[in-house]
Amino acid sequence: MNRYTLESLKSFTKDVLMAMGSSEESATLAAKVLLSADIRGIDSHGVARLSGYVRLWEAGRINATPILKIIHETPTTAVIDGDGGLGLVVAPYAMQVAMEKAETYGTGWVSVKNSNHYGIAGYHAMLPLEKDMIGMSMTNASPLVAPTFSKSRMLGTNPISVAIPAKTEPAFVADMATTTTANGKLEVLQRKEEDAPNGWIQDKDGKPTQNAYGVKEGGALLPLGGNRVQGSHKGYALSSIVDIFSAVLSGANYGPWVPPFVSFLSPPENPVGEGIGHFLGAMRVDAFRPKEDFLNHMDNWIKTFRSAETVDGEEKVLIPGDPEREMETIRTKNGIPLLSPVENDLKGLAEKFSINFPTHII
Amino acid sequence: MNRYTLESLKSFTKDVLMAMGSSEESATLAAKVLLSADIRGIDSHGVARLSGYVRLWEAGRINATPILKIIHETPTTAVIDGDGGLGLVVAPYAMQVAMEKAETYGTGWVSVKNSNHYGIAGYHAMLPLEKDMIGMSMTNASPLVAPTFSKSRMLGTNPISVAIPAKTEPAFVADMATTTTANGKLEVLQRKEEDAPNGWIQDKDGKPTQNAYGVKEGGALLPLGGNRVQGSHKGYALSSIVDIFSAVLSGANYGPWVPPFVSFLSPPENPVGEGIGHFLGAMRVDAFRPKEDFLNHMDNWIKTFRSAETVDGEEKVLIPGDPEREMETIRTKNGIPLLSPVENDLKGLAEKFSINFPTHII
Repeated sequence: MNRYTLESLKSFTKDVLMAMGSSEESATLAAKVLLSADIRGIDSHGVARLSGYVRLWEAGRINATPILKIIHETPTTAVIDGDGGLGLVVAPYAMQVAMEKAETYGTGWVSVKNSNHYGIAGYHAMLPLEKDMIGMSMTNASPLVAPTFSKSRMLGTNPISVAIPAKTEPAFVADMATTTTANGKLEVLQRKEEDAPNGWIQDKDGKPTQNAYGVKEGGALLPLGGNRVQGSHKGYALSSIVDIFSAVLSGANYGPWVPPFVSFLSPPENPVGEGIGHFLGAMRVDAFRPKEDFLNHMDNWIKTFRSAETVDGEEKVLIPGDPEREMETIRTKNGIPLLSPVENDLKGLAEKFSINFPTHII
Repeated sequence: MNRYTLESLKSFTKDVLMAMGSSEESATLAAKVLLSADIRGIDSHGVARLSGYVRLWEAGRINATPILKIIHETPTTAVIDGDGGLGLVVAPYAMQVAMEKAETYGTGWVSVKNSNHYGIAGYHAMLPLEKDMIGMSMTNASPLVAPTFSKSRMLGTNPISVAIPAKTEPAFVADMATTTTANGKLEVLQRKEEDAPNGWIQDKDGKPTQNAYGVKEGGALLPLGGNRVQGSHKGYALSSIVDIFSAVLSGANYGPWVPPFVSFLSPPENPVGEGIGHFLGAMRVDAFRPKEDFLNHMDNWIKTFRSAETVDGEEKVLIPGDPEREMETIRTKNGIPLLSPVENDLKGLAEKFSINFPTHII
């Protein structure tokens, strides 16, 4: 696989978004958010999605020049209308509003409607870290997941991210779909012609299957837990909470009405809201106890868990965020590898918009 | 099994707590909270625990006459010192504080230290419902759960509950341990001499086991997901978030320092905080959008999911809270059944404190 520097892919992404009509400021931010997935190793949510955004824009389903508005607020809450913009731009704005409220009142909570895919949940949750705030981020997404006991796709992979600052230790950053696995991992199995593990997917009749194409053939991803005995009703509940906080609080589409990310599928008729929804929160740690006390105990928490005794064959116990941070170090040094279908897709965009495609690292 | 009316067990519990020295007001509240578990079918968290509370009180580890204090606050946040009191009393007070803040500022968030076991998480999360607020409740608990890749018990079953009001539909009430299963379900299997399903527990070496006594023999419960391939790192992250919000924010004990619920095990030496911790939150739905809009869409959300197509052999798709509500209807009519060991245990308390034990339903 060819590898590219972060800066070169960011610059290319910015050029594509500006060719779509985005302002330079918006395009710069969106490129930064999108590439934060690639550098952290979450390839399914990074630059590989760029052509998908372009196709949605061509279909009139993404507004490249949105006017973001607060349409309802209290001292600690707000609802933002994303005006059909890129979630990559809408969500950082919403988090900014949440952080300003937290600055004054201790906490801030913002629900967003009329938005689109916002990249990785973790990017947004991590924004408050530099102000010694806890960040939270969640979003609903196109329905691919069946509730426990159902054969229908009713929910998205609806991720939750929570980022918690520490003092000398790197921050605790959980960033997780509320399903057993992500759709991107099925694509990896399909390429390798391997079966899917138990508990990942069900077929169109709602029966467990190990067919890695099960979702494409009308089945569904399973909520975290995988089946009732192993707690899938809990994953279903978590995914539902994400859906309700992101969309029923804001006025976005929820459940089966969430518009699909792919342009070749039309959004459902008779929508119950506008676009997709996000929910963002910020809490100042010193709204609860003196900052130094919190940060010192958080360091102790992290050190204690990282040094917990391992089972045979495992090197160490991980803290949420460790794998992505390790990948970031590697890719900052070695560049971001692109699969050739992704590379070709991006070259197609370069041609479409008459933009230079970057040279890979030799 | 003998069955008892809710009122008779509530009254008995109140008498026991007053014999421990609780005020009538505190004892009445604590009995109500404790029995809310039994009436909803969560027997592991109800009156069966009463003698455990008494033993902790005898060991000087529960204060029957706590003075609850707000020790830190902002407009939307507070930390409460539970003064070693029953969590059954401390948590409703904390939620009251959260709701008052939400009334004025849109949301309220309270972290609690120096508390004890608080019964079912769902009771506390449901308190804001009557004011058309969303309620959230979580607590840490004695370490019985191993992080992914570890053989050590580092976390409790650390439940999360979220309650969301609707209009004509009953509320959405998720109330879930962040483990695959609850410890109480292992006790059921032990009585039946049955094996545990895969993904519930590991043995003392951290290997998966189906031995229902695995935890008693030095093993651990597993985080939701069960193993790494099926997402246990997500359950581990969720449980960690509960631990940090409940205890690192408040100054309670966290991780392996959480004191055990059983009086025959001593609390760890060199504690990192005081008692156990809870985290409670309330958000006014009209802090986000007009109340009627929210409630109507919530009704639609619930109806849509409840009528989702089922897999063969399942009668319907459940909404979080449905099973407990159905059990409440049945037990309100037929009474609460007590296993004979529980019944004998309670009769022992009646004798100890010279209190009348109620007559069962004929």
